[in-house]
Amino acid sequence: MQTTRRGMRGLSLATLVLAVGATTAAAQAQEGADLDLQAKSGRPPLVLLRQGSFFIDGKTVHTDAPVATPSPLFPPGEVTVDQMYVEFMVPQSETPQVPIILLHGCCLSGKTWETTPDGRMGWDEYFVRKGHAVYVPDQVSRARSGFNATVFNEVKQGVRPPGDLPDVIMATHEAAWGIFRFGPRFNVPFEDELFPVDAVNHLYQQMIPDLNALLPANPNPTFPNLARLARRVGGAVVVGHSESGFFPAEASLINVEGFRGMILIEGVCRATLTSQEIAKLAQIPILVVFGDHLGDVDPPYNAFWPTALEGCNTFIARVNAAGGDATMFYLPQMGIRGNSHMLMQDKNSLQLANLLRRWISRHVDVRQ
Amino acid sequence: MQTTRRGMRGLSLATLVLAVGATTAAAQAQEGADLDLQAKSGRPPLVLLRQGSFFIDGKTVHTDAPVATPSPLFPPGEVTVDQMYVEFMVPQSETPQVPIILLHGCCLSGKTWETTPDGRMGWDEYFVRKGHAVYVPDQVSRARSGFNATVFNEVKQGVRPPGDLPDVIMATHEAAWGIFRFGPRFNVPFEDELFPVDAVNHLYQQMIPDLNALLPANPNPTFPNLARLARRVGGAVVVGHSESGFFPAEASLINVEGFRGMILIEGVCRATLTSQEIAKLAQIPILVVFGDHLGDVDPPYNAFWPTALEGCNTFIARVNAAGGDATMFYLPQMGIRGNSHMLMQDKNSLQLANLLRRWISRHVDVRQ
Repeated sequence: MQTTRRGMRGLSLATLVLAVGATTAAAQAQEGADLDLQAKSGRPPLVLLRQGSFFIDGKTVHTDAPVATPSPLFPPGEVTVDQMYVEFMVPQSETPQVPIILLHGCCLSGKTWETTPDGRMGWDEYFVRKGHAVYVPDQVSRARSGFNATVFNEVKQGVRPPGDLPDVIMATHEAAWGIFRFGPRFNVPFEDELFPVDAVNHLYQQMIPDLNALLPANPNPTFPNLARLARRVGGAVVVGHSESGFFPAEASLINVEGFRGMILIEGVCRATLTSQEIAKLAQIPILVVFGDHLGDVDPPYNAFWPTALEGCNTFIARVNAAGGDATMFYLPQMGIRGNSHMLMQDKNSLQLANLLRRWISRHVDVRQ
Repeated sequence: MQTTRRGMRGLSLATLVLAVGATTAAAQAQEGADLDLQAKSGRPPLVLLRQGSFFIDGKTVHTDAPVATPSPLFPPGEVTVDQMYVEFMVPQSETPQVPIILLHGCCLSGKTWETTPDGRMGWDEYFVRKGHAVYVPDQVSRARSGFNATVFNEVKQGVRPPGDLPDVIMATHEAAWGIFRFGPRFNVPFEDELFPVDAVNHLYQQMIPDLNALLPANPNPTFPNLARLARRVGGAVVVGHSESGFFPAEASLINVEGFRGMILIEGVCRATLTSQEIAKLAQIPILVVFGDHLGDVDPPYNAFWPTALEGCNTFIARVNAAGGDATMFYLPQMGIRGNSHMLMQDKNSLQLANLLRRWISRHVDVRQ
C-alpha cells in the first residue's frame, strides 16, 4: 500500500492507493482510541519475560575537577564517560517479533517513548504488547547516561576560559511549539492538530538540556553505542527521531551487523554520504517518516522541515538506485493529516505505530 | 525481632534475639540467590496492571539564554524547571501492598534501583513481584528530570562571572569506592564485601554529575515534589538513600498526608530538627538502615558514616521519646555482615528487601 520507493513526488497511482489507505487509517485511529480507553478501564495486563536496564560501553578518563571547590572527599581521579543507559522490556510472547530500539531527539530523553503527555500508552509498551522486545536508550550526555562535567568545574575554578563551555541547548516552550509544529504560532494550534495540545505542559516537563556540544563530534559516541546495542540484542529495527533521526544510519555505517532495519523519523538525512556509504546502507531496509504541516508554521520554523523532507527524498532515491529498499511515509500524502513532529505522542500514535509494524512485516520480517 | 526503639546501644537482650535473626537471614540470602538463579533460567513472568512514567510539578521560568550562541531558532523564552520524572510499575496482584517510592542518592539516578551492576533483579522489580506498586523518581536537576542550564550559557556569553557556576559533583571511581565502602582502599575489597566488586565498572557507568548546587536550597524542590508524589499515589512508604536518605523526612514535614511510612537508608539525619518537627515525624513509622564497615575504610572516608549512624540514633531516640515508632536496622548488629553503602545492589539485596517488607508488615500495614 505505501510502497513509495520513488519518494513523495509524482505519486499519481499511489495517490489513489493511499486514499484507500486513509480509510484503513481512520479505522486504525479508532482502534487506537479504543485501546486508549482500555488503558483506563481494563486493558489486559502486560506480561513481561524480563525488564530492567543496563549500560553500553563508556570509557574511563581522568578528571582534575570532579568538584569545583577542592575537597578531601573528592580528589582528582577517574570517571566513566560516554556510556549509554538503556532500559528494556521483553514480552512473554509465543511469536516473538524483531527487537526494536527507540532513540529520542533533541532536548528530550527516553521518556519520549513512554506514557504520552496526555496519559496514553507509549510506543514502548505498544510494541511490547505486539511481541517486540523494546530497548529505550538515553543518548550519551543526556539524562541517565550522564556527561563529563569537568569543563564546568574548571571554568568555575578559573583554570579554563568561559568560552570553553559547551553551547547547551534548552528548547523553550515557544521553540518547541514551532519546531514541533503544534500550530502556526505559539499557543495557536492547527485546526486538525493531532498533538494533544491540552497536555502540552506535560511535554514541556520532558524537555531537558541537550549537552551534545560536549561530545567528540566524529563520531558522536551514541553512534558506536547504538551499533553495539543492536548487536547485543541479537539484531533490531533501530528507530531514531529528530536530532537522532539519522543516528541509526550513522551507527550502521560503523557496524551494520545488528541492523535488521531502520526507521528514520523526522530527521535530517546527511547529504554528504559517499557512494560507498550509500552502498552499505542499501543492505538494510529503511523507512523514513514525516508528519504534516512541514512548512505551515510561521518563520523562522517554516523552512526547516520542508528542506529535511527534500533531503531525505534524495537520500531514498540514492539508496534505491544502489539496489536498496528505502521507503518514504510522508503521512499527509497517505491521507493521514494533522500529525506533529512528536508523532509518537500524537492522538493517532498507536495507529502510526501499527503502520510501522506493517512496514516491518513487509520489509524486515521477509528477510528472516 | 529487630525492634530496636532504643537504637544501636546497649542491645544485650537484642543481641541474642538477633543471633536467631542471623540464621533466618542466612536462609533468606539463599532464597535471594535462588531467585537470582531463576532470573537466568525461568523466573515466572512479571505481570503488570500498568507501567509508564509521568512528571511531578515544575514551574515555568523565563530564560534569556536557552542557547549560548544567539540563534533565530532559539530566542529567549520560557522553560519548565524543577519538575521530577517518575517511572512506575503497578503489579497485577490479588493482595495489593502499600505503594513504595524509591529515591536515589548523590551522583546517581533512578537506575540505582533497577537491574544490579552484576545483572540481578533490582529492588524495583522485587517489590512489584511482592505486590507493591513501585515509583522511581529521578531527583530534580538529575537525569530525566532535567535542570535549568541558563547559568552555563550566560557564563559562556560573558554576561555572568564564572563564579556563578554551580559546584557540580562527579563521584570518581576512587571516591565511590571509599564512600560506598567496597573496601579499605581503592580496588581492595573487604574480605566479606557483599557489593559485587567484579561488576563495579557497571556501577561507575551509573554515576552521573550531581547538579543539586543549582537548586534553591530551602526547600530543595525534590522535597515538595516527593510529598506530592506520595499523595498522588494514594499513600506510600517513601525510601531515600544516601544524599536523599533524609529527603522522605524533609518531604513529610512539608505535607505528611501521603506518608504511610519512611525508610531512610544510609542518610544523614538532620540534627537541627525542632520539637515541633520531631512531633510531626512521630506520626509516621520510620525505619533507618545502615550497612557494615562504617568506619573501616581509610581516611578521609572513615569518619563520615559512623558520624551519620550516631546522628540517626539520636534522631530515632528523639522521635521515640515523642511517642513515635522509629527503628534502627544496623545490619552488622543483626548478624548481617559485609554490606556496602549500595546495599540495594549488594549480593544479598533481595534478602534485605525482604527485611524491609517484614518491617512494613509489622509497622505500616498494621495501621491500615
